[in-house]
Amino acid sequence: MPRSTRRRPALTHPAVEEIDLFDVLHALSDPTRMTIVRILRAEAERPCGTFPVDVAPSTLSHHFKVLRESGLITQREDANRRISALRAVDLEHRFPGLVDSILAAHARGADS
Amino acid sequence: MPRSTRRRPALTHPAVEEIDLFDVLHALSDPTRMTIVRILRAEAERPCGTFPVDVAPSTLSHHFKVLRESGLITQREDANRRISALRAVDLEHRFPGLVDSILAAHARGADS
Repeated sequence: MPRSTRRRPALTHPAVEEIDLFDVLHALSDPTRMTIVRILRAEAERPCGTFPVDVAPSTLSHHFKVLRESGLITQREDANRRISALRAVDLEHRFPGLVDSILAAHARGADS
Repeated sequence: MPRSTRRRPALTHPAVEEIDLFDVLHALSDPTRMTIVRILRAEAERPCGTFPVDVAPSTLSHHFKVLRESGLITQREDANRRISALRAVDLEHRFPGLVDSILAAHARGADS
C-alpha cells in the first residue's frame, strides 16, 4: 500500500438513522457547503478538487468533513482522488423532501 | 418613560427581502431554537419567559436574539414582558414551504 494511502484516516459516515436534522441544517447554513450540495444534487459524484468554490484547500477539506459527518454526502478514495456524492436516497428516506425544499429556497434567494 | 424601558435597546428586525437563508438555517440548527419556532408555529404569540425550555435566562435571550435577527420571529415589548411571534407570512413569502418542511423533518426525527 502506498504511503500516501496508508496514512489517510478512514472516512466515517453516519448510518442513515443516525443522520441528525440539526447537523444537516448546520451543514447547509454555509454558502460554500450549499454550493457543493447543489452541484452534487445534479451530478452522480464529483472529485473534491473540481468544485467551483473559491476557498483555501484546508477550508474546503473542513467543509467536506462537515458535510460528510452530517450525513449529507459520502466520500470515497479513488486512487489519488477523493470522490463525493450526495446521499440523496438516505436523505429522502430520513427527511422526505427536506433537501429539495432547502435547495429551492436557496435558488429563490439567489434570484432576489 | 420609566427607566427600565428607556434603557432597553431597540428591537431590530430584518426586512422581509433581507431575510437570509443561511441565517435561517443556522437559527434552526439548535434544538432550543427549534422548540421555540415549533411552539410559535402553533400559537399567535407568546411571552419569552413562558417557553418550556431548560436553559439559563442569558442563554435564552441569546437564542431569541438569533431568531429575531435571522428574520424567523418578531419581538415586541408589552409592559414588562417581551412577546415573540413567528414571522409566518414573511417567511412564506420569502421561502415558500421552507419552515414547514423543516418542522416536518423535525417531527419525523423526533419520532425515530
